[in-house]
Amino acid sequence: MFRTHTNGELSLHHLNENITLSGWVQTIRDKGFMIWIDLRDRYGITQLVFDQDRSSAALMEEAKKLGREFVIQVEGKVIERVSKNPNIPTGEIEILVEKLTVLNESQLPPFTIEDQTDGGEELRMKYRYLDIRRNPVKDKLIFRHKMAQKVRNYLSDQNFIEVETPVLIKSTPEGARDFVVPSRMNPGQFYALPQSPQTFKQLLMIGGMDRYFQIVKCFRDEDLRADRQPEFTQIDCEMAFVEQEDVLEIFEGMTATLLKDIAGKEFGKFPRMTFEDAMKNYGNDKPDIRFGMKFVEVNELVKGKDFKIFDDAELVVGINVEGCADYTRKQIDELIDWVKRPQVGASGMVWIKFQNDGVVTSSVNKFYSEEDLKKITEKFGAKEGDLIFLMSGNENKVRTQLSALRMELGNRLGLRNPKEFAPLWVIDFPLLEWDEETGRYHAMHHPFTSPKPEDVHLLQTEPGKARANAYDLVLNGNEIGGGSVRIFDKDLQSKMFDLLGFTKEDAEAQFGFLMNAFKFGAPPHAGLAFGFDRLVAILDGNEVIRDYIAFPKNNSGRDVMIDAPSKIADEQLNELELRLNLKS
Amino acid sequence: MFRTHTNGELSLHHLNENITLSGWVQTIRDKGFMIWIDLRDRYGITQLVFDQDRSSAALMEEAKKLGREFVIQVEGKVIERVSKNPNIPTGEIEILVEKLTVLNESQLPPFTIEDQTDGGEELRMKYRYLDIRRNPVKDKLIFRHKMAQKVRNYLSDQNFIEVETPVLIKSTPEGARDFVVPSRMNPGQFYALPQSPQTFKQLLMIGGMDRYFQIVKCFRDEDLRADRQPEFTQIDCEMAFVEQEDVLEIFEGMTATLLKDIAGKEFGKFPRMTFEDAMKNYGNDKPDIRFGMKFVEVNELVKGKDFKIFDDAELVVGINVEGCADYTRKQIDELIDWVKRPQVGASGMVWIKFQNDGVVTSSVNKFYSEEDLKKITEKFGAKEGDLIFLMSGNENKVRTQLSALRMELGNRLGLRNPKEFAPLWVIDFPLLEWDEETGRYHAMHHPFTSPKPEDVHLLQTEPGKARANAYDLVLNGNEIGGGSVRIFDKDLQSKMFDLLGFTKEDAEAQFGFLMNAFKFGAPPHAGLAFGFDRLVAILDGNEVIRDYIAFPKNNSGRDVMIDAPSKIADEQLNELELRLNLKS
Repeated sequence: MFRTHTNGELSLHHLNENITLSGWVQTIRDKGFMIWIDLRDRYGITQLVFDQDRSSAALMEEAKKLGREFVIQVEGKVIERVSKNPNIPTGEIEILVEKLTVLNESQLPPFTIEDQTDGGEELRMKYRYLDIRRNPVKDKLIFRHKMAQKVRNYLSDQNFIEVETPVLIKSTPEGARDFVVPSRMNPGQFYALPQSPQTFKQLLMIGGMDRYFQIVKCFRDEDLRADRQPEFTQIDCEMAFVEQEDVLEIFEGMTATLLKDIAGKEFGKFPRMTFEDAMKNYGNDKPDIRFGMKFVEVNELVKGKDFKIFDDAELVVGINVEGCADYTRKQIDELIDWVKRPQVGASGMVWIKFQNDGVVTSSVNKFYSEEDLKKITEKFGAKEGDLIFLMSGNENKVRTQLSALRMELGNRLGLRNPKEFAPLWVIDFPLLEWDEETGRYHAMHHPFTSPKPEDVHLLQTEPGKARANAYDLVLNGNEIGGGSVRIFDKDLQSKMFDLLGFTKEDAEAQFGFLMNAFKFGAPPHAGLAFGFDRLVAILDGNEVIRDYIAFPKNNSGRDVMIDAPSKIADEQLNELELRLNLKS
Repeated sequence: MFRTHTNGELSLHHLNENITLSGWVQTIRDKGFMIWIDLRDRYGITQLVFDQDRSSAALMEEAKKLGREFVIQVEGKVIERVSKNPNIPTGEIEILVEKLTVLNESQLPPFTIEDQTDGGEELRMKYRYLDIRRNPVKDKLIFRHKMAQKVRNYLSDQNFIEVETPVLIKSTPEGARDFVVPSRMNPGQFYALPQSPQTFKQLLMIGGMDRYFQIVKCFRDEDLRADRQPEFTQIDCEMAFVEQEDVLEIFEGMTATLLKDIAGKEFGKFPRMTFEDAMKNYGNDKPDIRFGMKFVEVNELVKGKDFKIFDDAELVVGINVEGCADYTRKQIDELIDWVKRPQVGASGMVWIKFQNDGVVTSSVNKFYSEEDLKKITEKFGAKEGDLIFLMSGNENKVRTQLSALRMELGNRLGLRNPKEFAPLWVIDFPLLEWDEETGRYHAMHHPFTSPKPEDVHLLQTEPGKARANAYDLVLNGNEIGGGSVRIFDKDLQSKMFDLLGFTKEDAEAQFGFLMNAFKFGAPPHAGLAFGFDRLVAILDGNEVIRDYIAFPKNNSGRDVMIDAPSKIADEQLNELELRLNLKS
């Protein structure tokens, strides 16, 4: 061992002990007669001191040659600091160095290895191994590890078995695009990398495994949007002989365990909301319920007053922004511009101020009397000092637009404290969604999701209205997990494939093995999966998942550090019996 | 929940309780007036009873319609059994069924779901989900999970951080063949699947992560030998600021923890053996030390007696098989035939019997007096009743052949009890091995392995003699883990690449990012990796790793259950800008 202690553990308890430390040179303060060095490792920082009165001239000379990020080993004695630093655990002591060994030199790093670095994103990704030395990055990776351990221990204690499912599987055109892997031993054939272990976990249930989980890499060859990775990690789970309630209970327990660890408090029963209510009240299937501004629909109060925009609208709906009646015209105009941006796409917005003097005024005073406006404020439960925004238009679109405004105001008003946690189950999702483009239904969750028993009859008549036994776990406005009760009856599964437009042959080719398995006694089962990267980010009060991945890829799917993907040798292609067919 | 209890937990404590169970119909015994059913789930078996005196006619009728592997739910009362079964935990009770619900029917499964099944390997693989219902398979997967949990908790307690390294990386021609993944977003370029996270874990050390581990899937596109899988799982570990001794200590502790859990005893310090001694004494770098039969070299006792075979041999070496002097001529001839098989390749074998009557005789009495033979038996430390086998020839070959014989005799004599565990560190491996075919050195471990400091000078003069700071952990004659102290000096690493025949350009293209990272303060580091599939198999007293993989592939790399790999759609190939180039 190159050290007796780490750089995070020495204190006055170790006074006068002879110790050995190793680590990286973080900073050097050279006053000529004295040199202080901050020595860093994963565990912290310890101050080293070289002093011409107490250190040999040779040692002083050696110390002067050190540079940032040199890897050194020192032997010395723990002494009390004259000027203590209360901000770090080792701040009361320093090491009077007696022997210095340079284990490895370092070029000047391309950016400073400090909490606030001068390195841009691009550069830090190229030198990710240096970026990881910085506390903000290192701490996130350690946090991720701790969460994974907690999840594994919680689920193991609940009798779940982690089973590794294969990575080299079969390509299925349903869902997102697969990454494929040519098989050299089976020329012309390809494996696919799993988008999720969905079918394998269902097969494990048919295999009697009863309670399965896995923290597992999944893959999607999609055009990358910001903060989407081609490989990502799921906590994947499945249970047999259960109903929806059992699944919610287990994973509520798991999430509460993580939250308690982080927030230091019990979270009790998580609230639940139907998809329908979420859309109606928040315009969003993953509402952030840390703050209010619930939607209020006012069609009956605003129509028939000759305000054509409202008269023509399918829905007029608004939110009450408490205490913001003193917003200036400029502030309001800025918000109106904000909702008109193409990303939101609203055509405009009406405001109503319930002023502190009791007067109610609005941007549509021409059409509505103060009496009319008061009725609206009453419906909102607004009080003096509140500001109401109203939006109108197509029902679905206006809800989405108003939701965007609500979230933006939540951010601006500081109502989205990342250290506050508001978990929420959203349940009763629609089974299907109609796709205008292909003119057919898509499974909203996936094709194995069970309709609610009371809605099965709708499959014949109005499939779009059938609800599913599907549920999402939402945390602070982010979907962190989702799942469903599965179909376990082969006839119902067949019917689902029909509804989704699969031919018998396609269904057989893609899911034949699962359909076949259903013939041999499939138990009732249900499950869910958490997006682990996102879960960890949000639990840590952050929304950028990339920061929680040790070696992430950029938006073109490239690892700029190792320079992958890259060309491969012609012999490799030959062995795979493949040829490039480049279009440009 | 479809049950109040599992099928493994009811006992006389629950007498007269009304309970609900779910599971699969394991067996049906229908006596007409009474029907007994064994109901199975992951947790055990509970006997159900239907009795025409106590059950309704309708219920009897329903029960008669059940078949094997039907999934059912029953409500009933716990009653005491008349004839108890002491072999199962629930053997003192049975359930008088009051209500029966068929949750799912089952076709007759293609093989019996019992500990001893009538299903052949091929069939069981095709219906792996049914095979997993069988205890021997299910128990192995649960065992694997428990071992993984223990490993994770042990390493986490030791301050190791599990970091997920990427699966989509860069192809390097060194080592085994990579699986590659065409990148649609970067046409003509490919990712590779990792053969191990070697470079990433070294980068994590450079990144200051200090103690890293990961239980991780790795991939090798090799021609599959029996029991080799294209995807396999490693416990991958790396530590910084450590020397070999520190690594051995940590992972000895980890292995001892697993062994203690299984064997119920402390294992103390693991013995250590140099590679040289292992080869000399056992002809093998992974000796099974559960039994003796150490090699004894007898050149000086057998040469110069006109026995040409021994006179011409580079090495004459043997083993003493205790208590086997009464082997018949037939038994011995059979063993001689065994070593002559092409898999072993010996040209013959000499035997010496130290008979119970004190007489020493041999197959080469013509050349050696009883006096000569006695001297040999003395060197072996043989006693009355022992049998010595001698083999001769080229030093390396004869050791390998004798090692095969030793292992075979160990098996035949029952000296390799799978429930007995003998861990062993083999250390001081050679750094390089000469490859006749390519006429150059290969890294015995890998190109990042550090030579022993005292052997560095040999790299200039006799590289083949340089020893490495490399170590294997051997358990019962199997290598379960291996690792090394790494080179952390960029100049030494450069020299190694030279020795291994890399051009500067190749080294740069393949390992440029690692070499570059070495410039920024790489700490001393070392690590190792366990083959998790094999480790688990051996800990469970088995050597077939396939049994410990939920969904293994066959020897052609196929998953016969899902039928992968398979053809992909032309559009998929087009999107990837690839064309098939099939040779036949």
